[in-house]
Amino acid sequence: MSEKRTEIEGTGEFRLIQKLTSNFINRQSSTLKGIGDDAAVISISDTHAMVISTDSFLEGVHFNLMYTPFKHLGYKCVVAAISDVIAMNVVPQQIVISVAVSNRFPIEVLEELYEGIHTACDVYTLDLVGGDTNPSVSGMQISITTVGTAKKEQIVYRDTAKENDLIVVTGDLGAPYMGLQILEREKEVFKANPGIQPDLEGNDYLLERQLKPEARKDILRFLEELKVKPTAMIDLSDGLASDLFQICEASGLGCSVYDEKIPIDAKTSMAAIDFNIDPVTAALNGGDDYELLFTIALSDYDKIKGNPHMTVIGHMADAASGKLFIDKNGSVVPLKAQAW
Amino acid sequence: MSEKRTEIEGTGEFRLIQKLTSNFINRQSSTLKGIGDDAAVISISDTHAMVISTDSFLEGVHFNLMYTPFKHLGYKCVVAAISDVIAMNVVPQQIVISVAVSNRFPIEVLEELYEGIHTACDVYTLDLVGGDTNPSVSGMQISITTVGTAKKEQIVYRDTAKENDLIVVTGDLGAPYMGLQILEREKEVFKANPGIQPDLEGNDYLLERQLKPEARKDILRFLEELKVKPTAMIDLSDGLASDLFQICEASGLGCSVYDEKIPIDAKTSMAAIDFNIDPVTAALNGGDDYELLFTIALSDYDKIKGNPHMTVIGHMADAASGKLFIDKNGSVVPLKAQAW
Repeated sequence: MSEKRTEIEGTGEFRLIQKLTSNFINRQSSTLKGIGDDAAVISISDTHAMVISTDSFLEGVHFNLMYTPFKHLGYKCVVAAISDVIAMNVVPQQIVISVAVSNRFPIEVLEELYEGIHTACDVYTLDLVGGDTNPSVSGMQISITTVGTAKKEQIVYRDTAKENDLIVVTGDLGAPYMGLQILEREKEVFKANPGIQPDLEGNDYLLERQLKPEARKDILRFLEELKVKPTAMIDLSDGLASDLFQICEASGLGCSVYDEKIPIDAKTSMAAIDFNIDPVTAALNGGDDYELLFTIALSDYDKIKGNPHMTVIGHMADAASGKLFIDKNGSVVPLKAQAW
Repeated sequence: MSEKRTEIEGTGEFRLIQKLTSNFINRQSSTLKGIGDDAAVISISDTHAMVISTDSFLEGVHFNLMYTPFKHLGYKCVVAAISDVIAMNVVPQQIVISVAVSNRFPIEVLEELYEGIHTACDVYTLDLVGGDTNPSVSGMQISITTVGTAKKEQIVYRDTAKENDLIVVTGDLGAPYMGLQILEREKEVFKANPGIQPDLEGNDYLLERQLKPEARKDILRFLEELKVKPTAMIDLSDGLASDLFQICEASGLGCSVYDEKIPIDAKTSMAAIDFNIDPVTAALNGGDDYELLFTIALSDYDKIKGNPHMTVIGHMADAASGKLFIDKNGSVVPLKAQAW
């Protein structure tokens, strides 16, 4: 080991992987897209390509077994994994799963986990085509690889947004983050007094968005029907701000996002206020939304106007303008993202 | 969670994954092979298919950082991962890597790990097309997905061995296992007295086979040149006995393996005797060899006879004959495999 010591914690996750892989070169002519998007793209014929992505979920980092039922965990990991392929405008078709699990768990736990995986395969018409189970000396870990095949011209990347394109998000944001806050609060209450039943009443929507989210495969069909091909797309896993940064950086552009346009459910706002959190902070930095963030040409605006699944929240700009956030008073401030 | 509790430890690894996925069905017409081989096979055109496999490596289970240099670790994980695709008679082309790492490590450690991955990509002409790095609250974990494209007719499965086919292994077996024994012994010595330098002299071959193994991509070219297409193939990762069981069970056959035919290097034998281990036990149950185990039609025997890379160790038989091991005295005993 060299003597120099640079802390991992000080380096943003995205910069880190760029740094580690900067000297790698691609030699296979079939590699159309390597590192730097939601998924890699491999040419399989003149007209078609396969999209492939891997996602890992670690106990204590991505999930807490204290309040995550194993069935939900299996379902959620599949959703999060296939969301990366969906974000390439490609329908996920097959998944491969690796599970590392401590012997402290009985097999019934794995059966429940696979029941959740099975349900997700049903709901999203996926084939589980491979898997292994390894002993773990520490926490549970789940790695999922997702593949899907599509026409090359159909695939949407991150780095192809254009100046003045509109920025669109699907669904509403921040709910999973507030669901997590509620679960964390009840965990602390339970730890302090195991006799008290958790108070989760009235929070079904927020808890479900956190514990059993859905991937927006439906949006791909809507876009096809509307004849809208996004100019760039990413899924919202790290929070709107961070994921929008990815599109901006990859496309070499800036952006303007309007606070008042960001879709936030009333239940999310109420919970946020309850926790003394600005609702828009939950939307910008919460993460785990698994909604889609994409850009479209201005000329496509009429096609999505009024669509209940899609909200225009701003527009792309030249890089020199920076990444801007316009708050409810009209003040313009720099948009900030945690992982950068 | 249900109240029934079945211990994971009591269930063989292979039976466990079968049990967990027995109720999964395949819906995608492109899925040619799902769970149950070294890799999954997905049709990508009338003539071609893509082979995909995932492998996970966990600190404390698959590697010990006390004696594994990070550069070697990166190299070895790639070798082990691509070996599964090679075992389908397919040249691996792209890999995707997920690393989970504790903040206790400095970035320089990750750089060394990726240096090893980079070297492996050079040696095996692989493109690293995706990767993420996650924080881990416990040990280091590396997951690698490997893909390769091939003509459908070229792909070799596990379940297609025929009665009377010859059983062939490449290289020599048991060396990585003896390398591991030496490293474990020196670790104990070091723990008891940190002042003593490890005594690894004269064991280069065994240590290199353990710490920096190679995948037998070269064998695919040899087989092509010899015009031999194996009837079934698997890579030797869990030990000869266990991996041969896989071919037998998948193909619905028995086998006879001859002790005296199993290729074991003299250095492996000498180390085994030193450790009071029967050398053939190291070969049968040691694992981590990353050699290939395949079956060929009797009519192909002349093509591989005398080939320095390949050794015939026995033949397939009908299921009723069982899986037999013929020792040096000619005694016939049942072949035993640990993971079953």
